[in-house]
Amino acid sequence: MATVTPLHRETPPSLDPMIGLVTADMNQVNSVILARMQSDVPLIPELAGHLITGGGKRMRPMLTLACARLLDYQGTRHHKLAAAVEFIHTATLLHDDVVDGSNTRRGRRTANLIWGNSASVLVGDFLFSRAFELMVEDGSLRVLRILSNASAVIAEGEVNQLTAQRRIETGEERYLDIIGAKTAALFAAACRIAAVVAERSDECEQALDAYGRNLGIAFQLVDDAIDYASDDKTMGKDAGDDFRDGKVTLPVILAHARGNDAERRFWREAMEGHRTSDADLAHATDLLNRAGAIADTNARARLYGQRAIDALSAIPGGQAKAALVEAVEFAVARAY
Amino acid sequence: MATVTPLHRETPPSLDPMIGLVTADMNQVNSVILARMQSDVPLIPELAGHLITGGGKRMRPMLTLACARLLDYQGTRHHKLAAAVEFIHTATLLHDDVVDGSNTRRGRRTANLIWGNSASVLVGDFLFSRAFELMVEDGSLRVLRILSNASAVIAEGEVNQLTAQRRIETGEERYLDIIGAKTAALFAAACRIAAVVAERSDECEQALDAYGRNLGIAFQLVDDAIDYASDDKTMGKDAGDDFRDGKVTLPVILAHARGNDAERRFWREAMEGHRTSDADLAHATDLLNRAGAIADTNARARLYGQRAIDALSAIPGGQAKAALVEAVEFAVARAY
Repeated sequence: MATVTPLHRETPPSLDPMIGLVTADMNQVNSVILARMQSDVPLIPELAGHLITGGGKRMRPMLTLACARLLDYQGTRHHKLAAAVEFIHTATLLHDDVVDGSNTRRGRRTANLIWGNSASVLVGDFLFSRAFELMVEDGSLRVLRILSNASAVIAEGEVNQLTAQRRIETGEERYLDIIGAKTAALFAAACRIAAVVAERSDECEQALDAYGRNLGIAFQLVDDAIDYASDDKTMGKDAGDDFRDGKVTLPVILAHARGNDAERRFWREAMEGHRTSDADLAHATDLLNRAGAIADTNARARLYGQRAIDALSAIPGGQAKAALVEAVEFAVARAY
Repeated sequence: MATVTPLHRETPPSLDPMIGLVTADMNQVNSVILARMQSDVPLIPELAGHLITGGGKRMRPMLTLACARLLDYQGTRHHKLAAAVEFIHTATLLHDDVVDGSNTRRGRRTANLIWGNSASVLVGDFLFSRAFELMVEDGSLRVLRILSNASAVIAEGEVNQLTAQRRIETGEERYLDIIGAKTAALFAAACRIAAVVAERSDECEQALDAYGRNLGIAFQLVDDAIDYASDDKTMGKDAGDDFRDGKVTLPVILAHARGNDAERRFWREAMEGHRTSDADLAHATDLLNRAGAIADTNARARLYGQRAIDALSAIPGGQAKAALVEAVEFAVARAY
């Protein structure tokens, strides 16, 4: 068993230190993003811009930049690569929203709702190709290997999730495999490539990979928990979205595993789409709390968060490291 | 004005010489394809295999192999790269069928019909990522640049076509832009990369690029013409599919441009989806023939075919060159 050191603070943890650390670099990344999402076909920048300028945190490119700062990298190669990471992420969001039939993201209408599924699929393909063009311009085969592998793993995870859709039998291990692929792989790659451009050792690459991967899992687990407690205004996501969509997330997996026959029947019916009323959601939330499923999902998130922080232990401290540690604390503290 | 040399032969031109030329290499490519479409997620090889083993001609990887033979390349790098080209092509077909809502391809049910749109989108993404992994393993940044650029151009062309959908106002120039992007770019890249692995000059790369690009346009134009004259059994495509789907192809563009007011109204109504009966199709075919639109589409295809053949003029003759020339003759002769 890993020993989890509680994360104590005076003020709530925040992303602000990381945002402040990379402000100048992020302006460069934003310039690359805006320049490279252009096309002679007007629908491309219009649709891509809706999502790209739609208020996302740009967490993944921010991690590339912050990790480069951690390693005291002085060049500019990471600007294009961070833009490539954001393009890959944006492409997967466009395709995800088509796959899920989502109507809102970050509190706004989705691109598929406005422009249709076809346009979202094809503009996603365009951004994905652009990402590879940016990487090829950078010219590092090692970076290309890391990000093409992450892309294949993400797609594999998405298909895996699709085949687990609405299946209450999905176990915790399979669920962790899925989010390890569809969420954590890109977090890991975004961090890892900073070590490549800074020309650091394999050990350093692996440390940043582990930081990103564990942070990504923690992030996703907290997202899963928040969905049963979120406030429409603050999260851009309605409480109960996952429940109504029949998404088998860790809280549900735990509550189902720990439930009696009647409760298991309820979860099965809910995941199959037969329990979507407000009363059903209230009952689900009650079951989750009584089973300790939300608390234990958050506990697992804290464990992964701690592993993310521990992964940085061999790298000397400083402002950048403090910001990366606080980003983890922020990720897991969102649950409260 | 280019001078078009008529292509005279005793027997009908055939792809057989090219197929024979690359048989041994194609077996290697097929092994790579089968090995690299595997995944721990069973739906991926199942869905990908349906399309990949579904009787396509593998025209694009065959071109890579034949061009490598033309340049007397002795290595094996082109096997992985030809597989990457086929994966890119397969990914675009999967996404195309989702975008078009197609039910049949090559005479079989489409993957989107069997497994749904979501699975087709995600498995397409997986194959696309796998293609890049294969290229990264090869390690040529020049090949990566050529194929990542082709992929972006293809996606751009697909979006361009989407915005031109059912719009009878689409002119010949815009249409040629669209097929130059969505069809010819990958033909060009498939041929061009053979010059890269064979370490030939820029001029040689450009010659093969021009060969593939013009062949691709010729192929697409003949496909457009065939759709108004095809036989369900031989083509795996019903005559009139494009017409019923409101696809604005060159025959329609020419007939509309040359038509009187009543004919133009008919074409507009047809492209907007209000003329889908057998009688409408018969009327359309009659209009196309009277306007010389089929004949002139085929004439343009022959012109591009001649440009493809001329592009090879600086490269010494032999068995491979004869096969590549005959492939062009086959492409344009399909019209008769």
